[in-house]
Amino acid sequence: MDINKRKEEFHAYVEKMGGYEEAVNVMYWDMRTGAPKKGVKQRSNVLAMLSSDIFSMSISNEMAGYIKDLGDEEVKKELDAITLKMVEECKKDYEQNQKIPEQEYREYVMLTSEAGSIWEEAKEKSDFSLFEPYLEQIVAFNQKFAEYWGYEGHKYNALLDTYEPGVTVETLDRVFGDLKETLLTLLQKVQKAESPKTDFLYEAFPKEKQEAFSLEILKELDYDFEAGRLDETVHPFAIGLNPGDVRITTKYDESDFRVAIFGTIHECGHAVYEQNISKELVGTNLCTGTSMGIHESQSLFYELMIGRTKAFWERHYEALKEHGGSQFQKVNLDEFYQAVNEVKPSLIRIEADELTYVLHIIIRYEIEKALINGEIEVKDLPTIWNDKYEEYLGVRPAHDGEGVLQDVHWSDGSFGYFPSYALGYIYAAQLKNALVKDLPDFEERIQQGKVTEIRAWLTKHIHQYGKLKDPLELLKAATGEGLEARYLVEHLTEKYSKLYNL
Amino acid sequence: MDINKRKEEFHAYVEKMGGYEEAVNVMYWDMRTGAPKKGVKQRSNVLAMLSSDIFSMSISNEMAGYIKDLGDEEVKKELDAITLKMVEECKKDYEQNQKIPEQEYREYVMLTSEAGSIWEEAKEKSDFSLFEPYLEQIVAFNQKFAEYWGYEGHKYNALLDTYEPGVTVETLDRVFGDLKETLLTLLQKVQKAESPKTDFLYEAFPKEKQEAFSLEILKELDYDFEAGRLDETVHPFAIGLNPGDVRITTKYDESDFRVAIFGTIHECGHAVYEQNISKELVGTNLCTGTSMGIHESQSLFYELMIGRTKAFWERHYEALKEHGGSQFQKVNLDEFYQAVNEVKPSLIRIEADELTYVLHIIIRYEIEKALINGEIEVKDLPTIWNDKYEEYLGVRPAHDGEGVLQDVHWSDGSFGYFPSYALGYIYAAQLKNALVKDLPDFEERIQQGKVTEIRAWLTKHIHQYGKLKDPLELLKAATGEGLEARYLVEHLTEKYSKLYNL
Repeated sequence: MDINKRKEEFHAYVEKMGGYEEAVNVMYWDMRTGAPKKGVKQRSNVLAMLSSDIFSMSISNEMAGYIKDLGDEEVKKELDAITLKMVEECKKDYEQNQKIPEQEYREYVMLTSEAGSIWEEAKEKSDFSLFEPYLEQIVAFNQKFAEYWGYEGHKYNALLDTYEPGVTVETLDRVFGDLKETLLTLLQKVQKAESPKTDFLYEAFPKEKQEAFSLEILKELDYDFEAGRLDETVHPFAIGLNPGDVRITTKYDESDFRVAIFGTIHECGHAVYEQNISKELVGTNLCTGTSMGIHESQSLFYELMIGRTKAFWERHYEALKEHGGSQFQKVNLDEFYQAVNEVKPSLIRIEADELTYVLHIIIRYEIEKALINGEIEVKDLPTIWNDKYEEYLGVRPAHDGEGVLQDVHWSDGSFGYFPSYALGYIYAAQLKNALVKDLPDFEERIQQGKVTEIRAWLTKHIHQYGKLKDPLELLKAATGEGLEARYLVEHLTEKYSKLYNL
Repeated sequence: MDINKRKEEFHAYVEKMGGYEEAVNVMYWDMRTGAPKKGVKQRSNVLAMLSSDIFSMSISNEMAGYIKDLGDEEVKKELDAITLKMVEECKKDYEQNQKIPEQEYREYVMLTSEAGSIWEEAKEKSDFSLFEPYLEQIVAFNQKFAEYWGYEGHKYNALLDTYEPGVTVETLDRVFGDLKETLLTLLQKVQKAESPKTDFLYEAFPKEKQEAFSLEILKELDYDFEAGRLDETVHPFAIGLNPGDVRITTKYDESDFRVAIFGTIHECGHAVYEQNISKELVGTNLCTGTSMGIHESQSLFYELMIGRTKAFWERHYEALKEHGGSQFQKVNLDEFYQAVNEVKPSLIRIEADELTYVLHIIIRYEIEKALINGEIEVKDLPTIWNDKYEEYLGVRPAHDGEGVLQDVHWSDGSFGYFPSYALGYIYAAQLKNALVKDLPDFEERIQQGKVTEIRAWLTKHIHQYGKLKDPLELLKAATGEGLEARYLVEHLTEKYSKLYNL
């Protein structure tokens, strides 16, 4: 075998899959940002066709051949790091996709597709019983998949690994345990303290002005507009088509400007990650974020460590006042800072504040883990959910629509995904701790609008590698440690102690 | 052979090619309407990859098998009209693509790709000698292709047939001959008459106002916004992704509103064609316009037979005044109508008026025909070009940039394309003549903004068929005749006699 020739063929094959994926992503973006509705049906056929091409290529005999030939121990010695990792990723996908019997997989795809619309209906009617039989089957499938894929320790590890390679129940129990205690204590104290005034947050802020302000902020946060653009959608997202084209969308709520401003900063963090992946990785399957958790760490770094800080608003509050209406005239910077960081335990995850958000995730984690392990049953979920909300957050859903049915994730079978959100918080705080050692004037830089060096630090330690390194490998190299919750504990304790005079 | 099974496989195969094409077209649209520039290089790779997939599928052994099996005379008896035509189209493409030796085709693709940038440079420097050697080779290739493809009568017929099936040199000589005489006589008379006042056309008209007016007009012209959208590009175009998603772009020139208004109406004609193709044809290779000439006939019908008429402005002039600035206050409807229909022989085709436009095309037709037949040489083109412009239009280019180098078409090898533009004029006038027999209150309808029945007539006779019928077949069914220039002659004579009091 001519290794170089084989390697080239493999690269071309993977690049082709990536090309199809880029086409799919352009069409996805287009569907969300204004494709005319009458064309959607046919467009969906095209999307399904290309997605199915990608899937077929991932489990083809040709792919099996590459994995065998280039995965050979002798051959591996002659391969570069990028190719080695590419093969490893392909092998992982191949095995994941191959281990499930075809017939079962097809049933599962149909089940989750149907479950999506049933979940919508159930949520609207606040009727868990509609969704229950579907969820039971989805859980059963995921339990079987875990067996097919194999795992060490807890069965849930098999699912976790698909979103956050290397992170296990053992790790999560430890870090979430550490966090839960602090969060609950902090929350108790905060609730006894005086709440900030927040009425001004809900006064009219014209959409065009929000957009103009968002564009200003994006530029200052080192988002490259020659490699991106900002559009409007119902649900904000960032999408990397290639590192030269990473788009952000946001949502403008005229009676709550925070949705757009903090949403845009959050998506900007996702986007600068993808914009700064090394050009060497373009055309490979490594040219994307390494995991859901690390991706979220970048968006949360931008949102929390930059966008929700006092320093950031010291720089930007005047401009916000200029763009906004008269509501800000009576509000000084301190009051503004307190208001946008208000803590208020609530029922809905996506509306949660920085302090309580992780508790929403911990609740889901505890439920998923027990569910997959067969310790609890689907039929008991509403009660378990409501009890946990009451216990951790002091609020109890009045109906399942604002309770166990609120999130889409289970309807599409994404068990193991939720922890990524909390991991993003933990990684972000841990990275910030390491970053300030290199850039002790972190705060001053934000105050002065000099974010480039901060972004460059993240690029150096995270962005550039794309999927070339695993999450914990990146974390270790950047911080010298494994996953540690204590930096997030410190961050939250310090921030909220100051904010609420605890 | 199970004919039905084979037919289904063939349909799925063709639908797959169409799916790739839809993906390519979405990306093309995206590139023109605001894709960030740093992503273009990688996006171009993806486009090339998908285009090459489509090409490979068109000449694959699998395709050859379908053509053979479903093209069998006994099998054909059992096939429906749509499948028969699908096979015929596939066969045509297959033969066209297969008859050129692979090595020659590859050389040609590289040549035209390089010639594109050389042409740009030559045009900018007004230096034909730079482009000359490339054009010589391109002509030579096209002469060879004509031989490979075969033809009856004139060699140029082989090239014409790729853009306008069934239309030959013999037909064009006849209809262009008829036209040329009338056009030259009319033009002479017009030039002796008094010119309308036109300064107001060039006064400021804000872009936003032009856009608002364009949107109003599109709605009234029966463009379906649930199956389309309007965007801004440097070069306006319409693109049919599928009949439920046909997009228009336009260009706003603040010192000449005509560019956007008439451009939008023109593209609207292209778009309503594609929006109204029968749903039966979705997913087949017939779900597009039947030829360049028929496509152009629809855009020109909208532009000339509706948009540039007095009746149209009787309806819309007040609204235009409201959107526009003060320039229209001093101009009455008659003056406005005369100004937007001013005849002025000029050097540049794309800036030409309705009366002289066809002369620009006839010049190109005469040159292409002689060139392909070896009667003239590339090196003599600048002189031949300039002489013809002087003879037909009374203007002589000062340099080749505004002469023989003005159009991109020859650099990409599109010999045989130019006549489609003039055919569009002829078809449009001929269709209008037939249409007014069914809808004698054509003008009143336009005056009253009731365009739906007019659009429906075009849908009934043209749009719905997509590529299911050939251009001359459609024309015959709609008008009872073959190609006839006299309706265009009558239209132009009547219009300009009135306008200029001839």
